[in-house]
Amino acid sequence: MDELFEFGQRMLREQPFSVLLGTQLALFKPGEVVLTLAIRHALKQQHGFVHGGVLSYLADNALTYAGGSVLGDSVTSEYKINYVRPALGHKLVARASVLSSGKRQAVCQCEIVAIGEDGERLVAVAQGTVRKAETEA
Amino acid sequence: MDELFEFGQRMLREQPFSVLLGTQLALFKPGEVVLTLAIRHALKQQHGFVHGGVLSYLADNALTYAGGSVLGDSVTSEYKINYVRPALGHKLVARASVLSSGKRQAVCQCEIVAIGEDGERLVAVAQGTVRKAETEA
Amino acid sequence: MDELFEFGQRMLREQPFSVLLGTQLALFKPGEVVLTLAIRHALKQQHGFVHGGVLSYLADNALTYAGGSVLGDSVTSEYKINYVRPALGHKLVARASVLSSGKRQAVCQCEIVAIGEDGERLVAVAQGTVRKAETEA
Amino acid sequence: MDELFEFGQRMLREQPFSVLLGTQLALFKPGEVVLTLAIRHALKQQHGFVHGGVLSYLADNALTYAGGSVLGDSVTSEYKINYVRPALGHKLVARASVLSSGKRQAVCQCEIVAIGEDGERLVAVAQGTVRKAETEA
Repeated sequence: MDELFEFGQRMLREQPFSVLLGTQLALFKPGEVVLTLAIRHALKQQHGFVHGGVLSYLADNALTYAGGSVLGDSVTSEYKINYVRPALGHKLVARASVLSSGKRQAVCQCEIVAIGEDGERLVAVAQGTVRKAETEA
Repeated sequence: MDELFEFGQRMLREQPFSVLLGTQLALFKPGEVVLTLAIRHALKQQHGFVHGGVLSYLADNALTYAGGSVLGDSVTSEYKINYVRPALGHKLVARASVLSSGKRQAVCQCEIVAIGEDGERLVAVAQGTVRKAETEA
Repeated sequence: MDELFEFGQRMLREQPFSVLLGTQLALFKPGEVVLTLAIRHALKQQHGFVHGGVLSYLADNALTYAGGSVLGDSVTSEYKINYVRPALGHKLVARASVLSSGKRQAVCQCEIVAIGEDGERLVAVAQGTVRKAETEA
Repeated sequence: MDELFEFGQRMLREQPFSVLLGTQLALFKPGEVVLTLAIRHALKQQHGFVHGGVLSYLADNALTYAGGSVLGDSVTSEYKINYVRPALGHKLVARASVLSSGKRQAVCQCEIVAIGEDGERLVAVAQGTVRKAETEA
């Protein structure tokens, strides 16, 4: 297991909210990350789909990881998400990557797919800015 | 307790994810909603602040409620959030309102403040589109 | 005419694109700006409404001015816009304000109304981040 | 020249604002569009770069075209743009594509590059929602 991946896993364990939800790190290399999350009842809304807030959390976290892979310890400054389809199935997979980066900030994109019996389906796409954690606004 | 408020509380109880987080409905009237969430350890990230994903969830839900107050049962199609300050304190309050609405969609805004010993401080602002639940994209 | 307003007018005259479109500065004080633009045929799209790109330009510029009023010479890093109604009439008015600011960045909001025979109507709302011009990303 | 491309060119000629700026259609097929724009003095801001409003206009228009390629006559409902680098050179190229589409709406992404002496450089990325023109909100 390489250093970056180990750092990524430690951060995830140190985020109580990620522990509460059960997020897993599947891939973490410079400019790229894959996070996964098992879908369970507690993550749903009133229509039986995954709550949009869970997709947002996952997009936010994946964007932070993608930016952090090139900037070091980072936070998401802002992002935008489009939900494109209700999320059903047994697992969410968020794939984020860096589109452009400077010394302090990176612009990243993320797509989230839901994996069910009939394969994977795109459920949300996001785009946002990640900033080095020590940088004040 | 009026009908709209009762409908709003029922929806919240029927969202397992909102129950997991502990969201409360404080105000719900046509065009306006206030949701609150007690800050606890499980909602934080690695630096001791509320996880951005929690703020996103709360913004998403408040936007949906605001839109839903004029459209009926609704979902958030898309939104954008800017985190403006780390969230500390004991309670989050999300206030959302409708800026413009048609038959099927409403554009809404939301601000989230964190309440601590020194009063309330703005921590995030969001803007997005809410769509009637039965409307297919 | 105060110094800030004069600075704002000079910047507008030094932006060839703003000169091409005909943008006017109506108010400029710390944390707040109002820009106006006369609607004419050349600014429209195929259905006879003001082109969304004109509304976007005006929102972008108003956000930059709002941020610049507290940060000094600035650029818009990112923003999001919702078009809420087709823009008709004889004048656009964009009002932007600062929601939160630090040393290098400000988060700002903007609303654009179109003024016609029956008064003003909201046509677009925007939210985004403005950054001091000398700050590298 | 195929029908879709011809339709796209006609729309561009019927948009007075696109004629004013000088936008060209380079590619138009289902789910994909490429628009180009020659950089000239009139499109710049006070620091000599292309005005952000021009990039926004181009992103907005490319998103509409991408969505329109699968939905028919369309308008952009909302989008978000991140400027990642000052735009210099002699030509802008905006490439947009459809990420997901239903009967009434499509979610699209767009990247804009500036072409100069040293090749092409990414200057902005955008993501948004396009809606069939006859659909009321």
